[in-house]
Amino acid sequence: MRATLPPTDDKFREECGVFGVFGHDDAAALTVLGLHALQHRGQEAAGIVTFDGERFHAARHQGLVGDHFTRPSVVDGLKGDRAIGHVRYSTHGTPAQHNIQPMFAEFSGGGFAVAHNGNLTNALTLKGELQRRGSIFQSTTDTELILHLIATSIRGTLVERTVEALHKIAGAYSLVCLSNKKLIGCRDPLGVRPLVLGDLDGGVILSSETCALDIIGARFVRDIEPGEMVVITEDGIETLRPFAPAAPRFCIFENVYFARPDSTVEGRSVYDIRKRIGAELAREQPADADLVVPVPDSGTPAAMGYAEASGLPFELGVIRNHYVGRTFIEPSDAIRHMGVRLKHNANRDVLAGKRVVLVDDSIVRGTTSLKIVQMIREAGASEVHMRIASPPTRHACFYGVDTPESDKLIASRMPLADIADAIKADSLGYLSIEGLYRAHGETGRDDVQPQYCDACFTGDYPTRLEDQDNRDNVRMLPLLAEAGGR
Amino acid sequence: MRATLPPTDDKFREECGVFGVFGHDDAAALTVLGLHALQHRGQEAAGIVTFDGERFHAARHQGLVGDHFTRPSVVDGLKGDRAIGHVRYSTHGTPAQHNIQPMFAEFSGGGFAVAHNGNLTNALTLKGELQRRGSIFQSTTDTELILHLIATSIRGTLVERTVEALHKIAGAYSLVCLSNKKLIGCRDPLGVRPLVLGDLDGGVILSSETCALDIIGARFVRDIEPGEMVVITEDGIETLRPFAPAAPRFCIFENVYFARPDSTVEGRSVYDIRKRIGAELAREQPADADLVVPVPDSGTPAAMGYAEASGLPFELGVIRNHYVGRTFIEPSDAIRHMGVRLKHNANRDVLAGKRVVLVDDSIVRGTTSLKIVQMIREAGASEVHMRIASPPTRHACFYGVDTPESDKLIASRMPLADIADAIKADSLGYLSIEGLYRAHGETGRDDVQPQYCDACFTGDYPTRLEDQDNRDNVRMLPLLAEAGGR
Amino acid sequence: MRATLPPTDDKFREECGVFGVFGHDDAAALTVLGLHALQHRGQEAAGIVTFDGERFHAARHQGLVGDHFTRPSVVDGLKGDRAIGHVRYSTHGTPAQHNIQPMFAEFSGGGFAVAHNGNLTNALTLKGELQRRGSIFQSTTDTELILHLIATSIRGTLVERTVEALHKIAGAYSLVCLSNKKLIGCRDPLGVRPLVLGDLDGGVILSSETCALDIIGARFVRDIEPGEMVVITEDGIETLRPFAPAAPRFCIFENVYFARPDSTVEGRSVYDIRKRIGAELAREQPADADLVVPVPDSGTPAAMGYAEASGLPFELGVIRNHYVGRTFIEPSDAIRHMGVRLKHNANRDVLAGKRVVLVDDSIVRGTTSLKIVQMIREAGASEVHMRIASPPTRHACFYGVDTPESDKLIASRMPLADIADAIKADSLGYLSIEGLYRAHGETGRDDVQPQYCDACFTGDYPTRLEDQDNRDNVRMLPLLAEAGGR
Amino acid sequence: MRATLPPTDDKFREECGVFGVFGHDDAAALTVLGLHALQHRGQEAAGIVTFDGERFHAARHQGLVGDHFTRPSVVDGLKGDRAIGHVRYSTHGTPAQHNIQPMFAEFSGGGFAVAHNGNLTNALTLKGELQRRGSIFQSTTDTELILHLIATSIRGTLVERTVEALHKIAGAYSLVCLSNKKLIGCRDPLGVRPLVLGDLDGGVILSSETCALDIIGARFVRDIEPGEMVVITEDGIETLRPFAPAAPRFCIFENVYFARPDSTVEGRSVYDIRKRIGAELAREQPADADLVVPVPDSGTPAAMGYAEASGLPFELGVIRNHYVGRTFIEPSDAIRHMGVRLKHNANRDVLAGKRVVLVDDSIVRGTTSLKIVQMIREAGASEVHMRIASPPTRHACFYGVDTPESDKLIASRMPLADIADAIKADSLGYLSIEGLYRAHGETGRDDVQPQYCDACFTGDYPTRLEDQDNRDNVRMLPLLAEAGGR
Repeated sequence: MRATLPPTDDKFREECGVFGVFGHDDAAALTVLGLHALQHRGQEAAGIVTFDGERFHAARHQGLVGDHFTRPSVVDGLKGDRAIGHVRYSTHGTPAQHNIQPMFAEFSGGGFAVAHNGNLTNALTLKGELQRRGSIFQSTTDTELILHLIATSIRGTLVERTVEALHKIAGAYSLVCLSNKKLIGCRDPLGVRPLVLGDLDGGVILSSETCALDIIGARFVRDIEPGEMVVITEDGIETLRPFAPAAPRFCIFENVYFARPDSTVEGRSVYDIRKRIGAELAREQPADADLVVPVPDSGTPAAMGYAEASGLPFELGVIRNHYVGRTFIEPSDAIRHMGVRLKHNANRDVLAGKRVVLVDDSIVRGTTSLKIVQMIREAGASEVHMRIASPPTRHACFYGVDTPESDKLIASRMPLADIADAIKADSLGYLSIEGLYRAHGETGRDDVQPQYCDACFTGDYPTRLEDQDNRDNVRMLPLLAEAGGR
Repeated sequence: MRATLPPTDDKFREECGVFGVFGHDDAAALTVLGLHALQHRGQEAAGIVTFDGERFHAARHQGLVGDHFTRPSVVDGLKGDRAIGHVRYSTHGTPAQHNIQPMFAEFSGGGFAVAHNGNLTNALTLKGELQRRGSIFQSTTDTELILHLIATSIRGTLVERTVEALHKIAGAYSLVCLSNKKLIGCRDPLGVRPLVLGDLDGGVILSSETCALDIIGARFVRDIEPGEMVVITEDGIETLRPFAPAAPRFCIFENVYFARPDSTVEGRSVYDIRKRIGAELAREQPADADLVVPVPDSGTPAAMGYAEASGLPFELGVIRNHYVGRTFIEPSDAIRHMGVRLKHNANRDVLAGKRVVLVDDSIVRGTTSLKIVQMIREAGASEVHMRIASPPTRHACFYGVDTPESDKLIASRMPLADIADAIKADSLGYLSIEGLYRAHGETGRDDVQPQYCDACFTGDYPTRLEDQDNRDNVRMLPLLAEAGGR
Repeated sequence: MRATLPPTDDKFREECGVFGVFGHDDAAALTVLGLHALQHRGQEAAGIVTFDGERFHAARHQGLVGDHFTRPSVVDGLKGDRAIGHVRYSTHGTPAQHNIQPMFAEFSGGGFAVAHNGNLTNALTLKGELQRRGSIFQSTTDTELILHLIATSIRGTLVERTVEALHKIAGAYSLVCLSNKKLIGCRDPLGVRPLVLGDLDGGVILSSETCALDIIGARFVRDIEPGEMVVITEDGIETLRPFAPAAPRFCIFENVYFARPDSTVEGRSVYDIRKRIGAELAREQPADADLVVPVPDSGTPAAMGYAEASGLPFELGVIRNHYVGRTFIEPSDAIRHMGVRLKHNANRDVLAGKRVVLVDDSIVRGTTSLKIVQMIREAGASEVHMRIASPPTRHACFYGVDTPESDKLIASRMPLADIADAIKADSLGYLSIEGLYRAHGETGRDDVQPQYCDACFTGDYPTRLEDQDNRDNVRMLPLLAEAGGR
Repeated sequence: MRATLPPTDDKFREECGVFGVFGHDDAAALTVLGLHALQHRGQEAAGIVTFDGERFHAARHQGLVGDHFTRPSVVDGLKGDRAIGHVRYSTHGTPAQHNIQPMFAEFSGGGFAVAHNGNLTNALTLKGELQRRGSIFQSTTDTELILHLIATSIRGTLVERTVEALHKIAGAYSLVCLSNKKLIGCRDPLGVRPLVLGDLDGGVILSSETCALDIIGARFVRDIEPGEMVVITEDGIETLRPFAPAAPRFCIFENVYFARPDSTVEGRSVYDIRKRIGAELAREQPADADLVVPVPDSGTPAAMGYAEASGLPFELGVIRNHYVGRTFIEPSDAIRHMGVRLKHNANRDVLAGKRVVLVDDSIVRGTTSLKIVQMIREAGASEVHMRIASPPTRHACFYGVDTPESDKLIASRMPLADIADAIKADSLGYLSIEGLYRAHGETGRDDVQPQYCDACFTGDYPTRLEDQDNRDNVRMLPLLAEAGGR
């Protein structure tokens, strides 16, 4: 029985985090810890593959990292001084066991494991081609596609075959791969998803975010660059640049919501960006109010920035219940209707009689915003002014983020002017796209060559969407359905 | 396999929360929600007993409320318009299934269920007496003792028998009881543990804290008073005062740490008290520093109060990993050694080169404080000044809180002056007991008749400790051990 | 989720088996093996309690013995050189965890564990009396009643208190009890249920049947006699006879169906009795047929006896599927309708064109008999002559056997002459009650003082049925229901 | 945690059973029942794939059919009027989830599912070739190899591609396959493994044995012939003969032990063959004894035949414990040493003082035979004459049976003359190979062109053993190991 996340959690979802270790005796335990630090990037399943010089070892489980991977019986079975790991929230691929990454293939020359964060935009098209030549897919993941492309490449070395495979795929990807000899890390040419390089006692670490370096005490070395492939062997780290140079387009939503505030992304502190976003928001969308209250925890840094810039006091007017976790399996109707209160409660003594600026990072469908505004009002607030630390989200993401279809997005469904009413706020203000860029230290958005991928706000997708354009001709759904569990 | 809480969590533990509903069609669902809101008071197990006019219905499970109780199959089976519930962290009583509350007994006159928050100080003495007269105990809980005292009372009515039972017991207790006809709520004469009365659509609610009224949208009516017994029937609420009047001694540690910040306790906002504590702490224990950082989440309101009072900026210099929950079952050694980092990470961009005031609510063994101070220092802080939002904890609690033996408490093991060194802080400052009382709006502690139970700080226990005094003559351990668990 | 036994199994069910060891280092492992050998007497749950000189240790689990008890983690936890064990199929008592035996109580003088095979006929009456004096029951078993009677006895020694308790109860019981010093075995005055004494390497063994002595290689010493109590201590075995002498009334159905064919009961081989029953049946109910086929496995020895006596060939015309075990959890309707075929298949090459004598041990509701007769006919048999190795079962049992209400018994619902038609047999013949006694070496039934309890055939109950007579005045159902499982 | 079969079960193991339905509304439920009837052919895992006209549906679980597949939630999810199923005991392929059959692949032209009974003798050789051209294997089964061969065939139709694949493989196989349009059944050219055709209400059934037709009430039509491929579509059944004609070599051990006695195999009743084997054995290996006792249940028909032919009485001198099933997970040492007694007990009243002929179907390692002989002797038998209903087993099987290496087989380890001593029997007699053939109605074995595959007795393998011959050059073990299980 799968746990369902509480229905009140109306957010975009990151789909994955990746991690890798080369040359450290505790490779498996370090990967467990790294994945735990990256757990916010995917809570549905986790997996680790190690190599001990002779055989590969795998453990892949549904659930949180802490549910299975911390046991000695698992850690001890993952032998070897090199490992890759993955946490996953699924967009492509049902939650079945065979979709959990890293994926592994036994090539004629040896084993190869791949973990992937991102999403390919021509996967279905390529899959059809491979099936026509006789390849059999066991999962519905992009990752298996990459394995098949490498397997069927006729180039000489594994690195050459991997490069050839990457030349065929389009979309966003940060990959870590493990072969008999090598740990490989790679970002797509636009660098949409993050990947960083670290060092621990001379061992090499790859990670989606720096917070996973911190948990193991590793030193942050640098970001892997967009379009860069690093190949780590016992002889050291080699850098390849297999793609034509391109202007980077890092996902700006990582900074708004996905990344952990204690990570440093592309040279900037996420926490600091979010406080700056709050300050920009205070300047663009001031409010005549008594205090600033975050929707915890994602809205907290922006609310602090808003409070500082506006001079209004910052108060914890909404308290989060820490036990909501993954629980609430198949809630009864009576309980489902309690909605947001399972996770948040208004702190009435702070709110009673006050004019409140409520700061959240984004609005997706709007259902949760409505409930929180109502809760704040019932707790006695005289006015609720909603302020959003990003522009309106109007477009689906095809680069590894789980977003509703655009017709489910409130900012796409109705004029901006109507949203405040819809969520029953006294006023509503979004940050402008220019303000968002300013918070990143830019003078503004370069509309000709935007500095970030901001497609969810602008609809300006930085790559062709081949499967999407061709969606009437490819099979979106796998032919085989699992009946009654595993 | 039981989940073990992460070894980094060096805190006192509340042992229980209680909840009751009388006269509402959704009694079971409301109790599920109420217990979820009280989950911070006990995470080991939860239980609910309802009455449908003919039969009682029970569901009792190890784990969190959300793990089991939210399913329609459970909620629907808990029939009736009245219910009591309990969340538990065990001190007395092993985690076995038969110790989960509420406990139920079939008396000759009908059924009776009891849920209990607190701890009795003469339970073992009374148990020996009852066994000599032929009573058989199936659990190791105080709650079963209360049931046996009621069962063997020769008084006429159930209320009279309950009163007679309460006259025999000593210690701290807030009880909710359910019979064929009545819902009963009761606090011990000193009112050590909280219990509040609420109203929802004409139905009566009892709860350990007001946050559980909020989650179901109930109206807070008033605190049950120390020594008060309320008897709720279809005819309304009757108040009894079965004890000689006594000066109240509410547990001051509820305000320091146990209670949720969004609860109102004894007429005061817990969040507000904690901010005031922070302000007192800033006045008593100033520091020459650049910023104030809380140990989240329990230290956050006090840190905000400290920052406001000191004029130093408040920053989220420590980030909490929300996925640590109940996970990390039997961690391997390599992972256990990561200690505090499973739960917290330093936010390096905030801390680098800074003189930091680090605010926590209390220090128990000191092991976690040491690790957090080191982590902050490794993240680049130039100085770490630890400030504790309560006096040194030097004494064990016998009133329903899980504390280490006093020889494990760092403030009992060494002179105050040595603790800063032991936790590697540049300075350490505790709030004084007088400052703690001032933050509660008192002019200071009345040493003759203290306004609160502060025994964990002062050793001044407000009741006799009969079992403790007699501990060489009573059997502390049950005769039967469960082998190989269920 | 509880496994349900397949719906095709239309048999009376024995409710329990008991086992005990005193003075053997492998007490727990021996008890595991003994209970495995007694598994046919109860498949719902099993339990073991041991004593190591200081503490008692218990393991009690739903499911088969082999499911849990064979693991080293369980066996090793059951420390000590003395143990008692129990397998259970429930009649009284729902399948809840707290009903699994042995039951244990901590008396003021020490611990006491009891395992019970049988059923009391005045339990509810006594329970009401005990509740009125303040005893609290946690289970719905007769066994807990016995514990309460001992606990509240004011006699001096544990043996005296146990005897006093036994003087109050009526019905059928074979008990094994374990105290700090003693292992006690006892049969009710009529000796309705079996209990035997064995010896292994100088250690004492008690067991419901001799087959459990065989599995551990123990020597059969003798039957415990009706009304006998044996008290085993380190000083040896003492025999008490606490009851007035009475003529024994051993359950004759143990020999017809319950006991294992490889057990020796009351001095006779069960296998031999069943073959003699078959021979009597052949004489009383001959058939003009080609071959004799048993309904395996319970009808096999009687069919062999029938074949020998009649001179007809014995053939395996029905094959049993060994994998039906406890499986078939909540079968879908389509599968449930396959009924008997899940367990049995006709062996067509044997049956085609033949006139078949089909031998079964008994008919309860008749539903299975109908299906088996049809199956045999569809396999090509030209005639099917059903022969039953016992008299018609017309009356419910109150002595520890799970029987349907008498209005569900086919021999109670319709004239004998109609049953052959109802099960679509060409002819039907039951063994007479006189024939059944003759097969036991008697000249016939002594109607004044019957040699066995044969109440299920004759309605001649050997004790008063106090609860049954008083059933409108006692509560049959417990006041508390478990909702949504454990 | 995997259940381990009891250590006393010293038998060869069949590895698989297959089943298929085309054109029946209850296809899934029929397949569940069919697999239950074939459970003796594989107890480790089971799987079903159905097709509903649009999508395929799969359920694959470790454990018995009754453990999972009978639930409505599973049966209802397996939509469609056609299905194939599989029960498995693994030789090739670890017990991992991804090895459970039927295996499924999505070809460019549609889906294809395969279930396989048998074993290929050139699988590793072919797998290496396919990996070199880029195929990725997810399991370690022969079945996936067949799928890859079909996927990479460049022939036009699915049937042509399947035929091409079959031309490449060597060894023993009975296959059932399901595509969007067709159900295909096929036996290898020698017909080593069985496969039969049945009819139910106009729907077509395929099954390893006829007992699975009986359970669903289907009519037996005929055996699929060696080398025959039947292709079932909505237009009817078409027969192909894609192989050059070859003399059949059906596995004679199916008749000795594997097949259920109620099955009809190659036109003969298995029960009848076994009785004839017993009669031949009595003639070849008479004994001066008092009675004939089978080792139940596999030795029972041969013992009956022996008793009839010898005129000695047939008695149930060994009683089987029906609850041993799959239980006894990781038994403690003390329990493991009880060995055979967990499963069998001597019936002492039958054996005491008697000269016993003990009949078993075969001896593998000899460990169980020794224990049973000792048990019979301890029960009082004066002499034990072991008679084996097949020739000595001296050679490993490579055609789908799990046998020990030949150096573990007692008849290979020592001269025949020494085995009686090794198992402590007074005498030992095996059936001759000629006698075995005579029991099948042959005049004897045709040594030039043997009528059956009898390689386990004779070492005369009917095909080349390519992988075996080449075993130093192929990787026997997969590169990836699962750590800590799922």
